[in-house]
Amino acid sequence: MAITTVEWLEGDVPAVRLLDQTRLPGEEVYIEAPDVSTLVCAIRRLAVRGAPALGAVGALGVVLALAQARREGWDERHLRREIGRLRDARPTAVNLGWGVDRVLPLVTQGPAAALAEARRVLAEDEAANRRLSQLGADWLLAHCPRRSLRLLTHCNTGTLATTAWGTALGIVRELHGRGAVGLVHVDETRPLLQGARLTAWELAADGIDHVVQVDSAAPGAILRGLVDAVIIGADRIAANGDTANKVGSVGLALACADAGVPFVVAAPWSTVDLATPDGSAIAIEERDAAEVTSHAGVPTTPAGTRAFNPAFDVTPARLVDAVVTERGVAEPKLRPDMRLTEPAAPAATAPSPGAGPSSSGNSPRAASRSRRPS
Amino acid sequence: MAITTVEWLEGDVPAVRLLDQTRLPGEEVYIEAPDVSTLVCAIRRLAVRGAPALGAVGALGVVLALAQARREGWDERHLRREIGRLRDARPTAVNLGWGVDRVLPLVTQGPAAALAEARRVLAEDEAANRRLSQLGADWLLAHCPRRSLRLLTHCNTGTLATTAWGTALGIVRELHGRGAVGLVHVDETRPLLQGARLTAWELAADGIDHVVQVDSAAPGAILRGLVDAVIIGADRIAANGDTANKVGSVGLALACADAGVPFVVAAPWSTVDLATPDGSAIAIEERDAAEVTSHAGVPTTPAGTRAFNPAFDVTPARLVDAVVTERGVAEPKLRPDMRLTEPAAPAATAPSPGAGPSSSGNSPRAASRSRRPS
Repeated sequence: MAITTVEWLEGDVPAVRLLDQTRLPGEEVYIEAPDVSTLVCAIRRLAVRGAPALGAVGALGVVLALAQARREGWDERHLRREIGRLRDARPTAVNLGWGVDRVLPLVTQGPAAALAEARRVLAEDEAANRRLSQLGADWLLAHCPRRSLRLLTHCNTGTLATTAWGTALGIVRELHGRGAVGLVHVDETRPLLQGARLTAWELAADGIDHVVQVDSAAPGAILRGLVDAVIIGADRIAANGDTANKVGSVGLALACADAGVPFVVAAPWSTVDLATPDGSAIAIEERDAAEVTSHAGVPTTPAGTRAFNPAFDVTPARLVDAVVTERGVAEPKLRPDMRLTEPAAPAATAPSPGAGPSSSGNSPRAASRSRRPS
Repeated sequence: MAITTVEWLEGDVPAVRLLDQTRLPGEEVYIEAPDVSTLVCAIRRLAVRGAPALGAVGALGVVLALAQARREGWDERHLRREIGRLRDARPTAVNLGWGVDRVLPLVTQGPAAALAEARRVLAEDEAANRRLSQLGADWLLAHCPRRSLRLLTHCNTGTLATTAWGTALGIVRELHGRGAVGLVHVDETRPLLQGARLTAWELAADGIDHVVQVDSAAPGAILRGLVDAVIIGADRIAANGDTANKVGSVGLALACADAGVPFVVAAPWSTVDLATPDGSAIAIEERDAAEVTSHAGVPTTPAGTRAFNPAFDVTPARLVDAVVTERGVAEPKLRPDMRLTEPAAPAATAPSPGAGPSSSGNSPRAASRSRRPS
């Protein structure tokens, strides 16, 4: 994809530049956020979304707040409050706060040091995505007997959801590069249609054969034997492997468990939140009713209809065959403990110091454990 | 509901009058179909839909064909061909063909006899709906401990899907009448939004509290304990209880089975197809891609995107707690045999001769069987 989801714009008034994903696939429009308020607004209305991309925005957002503080003469307390607003712009994805926390310790060292760290966050995200994509492709080829896989994915987890390459969609790309993808079923992903609008756009750009379907068609397709594996992303993965992801994910996992189809979660290690023991502790963001009761400005319900609009659901670890991160593959269905991530190949096993919430004492270890029967 | 879904219009050129459900909730527009082609077109584009309503349209459609035959001087072969076209307008719902077959034997006796039989079909549908709604409400109150039920339904199964009152929504109405409904979760039901447009409209008219949600929010809501029972309709029920219904139904059934929430199918006995042994023999209609790739004329995918658009899915009997018909309640999860329908109260046990596919030798019998533990 020759697009940039999130980047830093230098200048007298620097800005975070975002591709406005609410306008895709119709228009390729960029937003320049020169202040925290504009950035928070863009996050809230999902101009930028996707857990890893939000990590990048959190990191760059701290640099942005710092620049605005100098420009407008904020005191320390004002700066911290604005950074807190940024961190809380969305409650479910752990990455936003994680990105903030990566850069926060460098604020006292000035804008240049903060920006350098934020840029490392972005570079590491792409490297993590490429590595986890290889590991995920290896795992799927070891667990799915077909040579030409029929995959199913939900929401958007590609370049648009990250800084580059993607997570679940990164695995699809990697498998495509190995000639192993037959067809991708793309859930349209109501209410905001990230699958229909964004994933279909990315797959078309890469020449990967796909069909878009309504979300509720997925369980039937899985039970009819039309799907070899489901691959999704994640917004927060608890210590036991419970996974919060776009609403609709747990329905896919239930169908996979019933049909014996692998259900795979792909995310950078920064999405793993070892401080959250299980899914019951994850706050589920409920969004505006208007997302459900109208589409493209046209009402879809009678006037005054109330809506229930959770943005996420939690898939219990018992339904998750694999969680793929750049550190390796965990298999929560067998062992509900994200610390038991399989050791990755040497090049990727050693996380850099401070590379995530697991940096102190939670580094992966080469656990001796049984493999899922294939 | 002070509306009429399907009715017969007398006149020099008689017609079948249909409420155009594609225009709801925005506009209340009626279609008058004076010939078979107009009627078939209305069925195909879902101006009228819902299995029981299609049964009524099948019955009235034969009378319409007969009138057109006389007017245009068709021979017997031409008439049979047009009736065949009507019967085949949609493949999955058994009721359309069932309605045709109810009236077909009377064609040789002339239009008056055929119309009288078609009118009996309509009257029996409403009576069946009211009876099954009582039985379904009884079953739910016996199986759900709460006094104020939080129900979830999919698609539209109300007055608009039948000749009057409704099936699954009829049970909701009956429970509401008994003061037992707290809230109804209404799946919007993509792609054509029968839940958001039609069910919400009917519930609002009856003052029953409800929220509309995207379809994929249902499994998460069920697993979170927000739903006491799911009630859906059916387009065809095989002899073993396998149930074809609007796409998305099987995903609800999987969530209910996982969470221990009752999953209830409601339909008139005319939807039971004892000639189909199980769901594998049910043809699943695949509809036009444009239903998925655009909404209200606005494209939702990049140009040229392909879609997978099955209109139905099949819920296996092992996931169905109860099938409620006017003849009683079958419990396929316990015994996968629709012939083992529980005997209903005396007033409704004796089906009229020729009242359905079960009329020869398949009448219900008072099977001695264990109840589902509540």
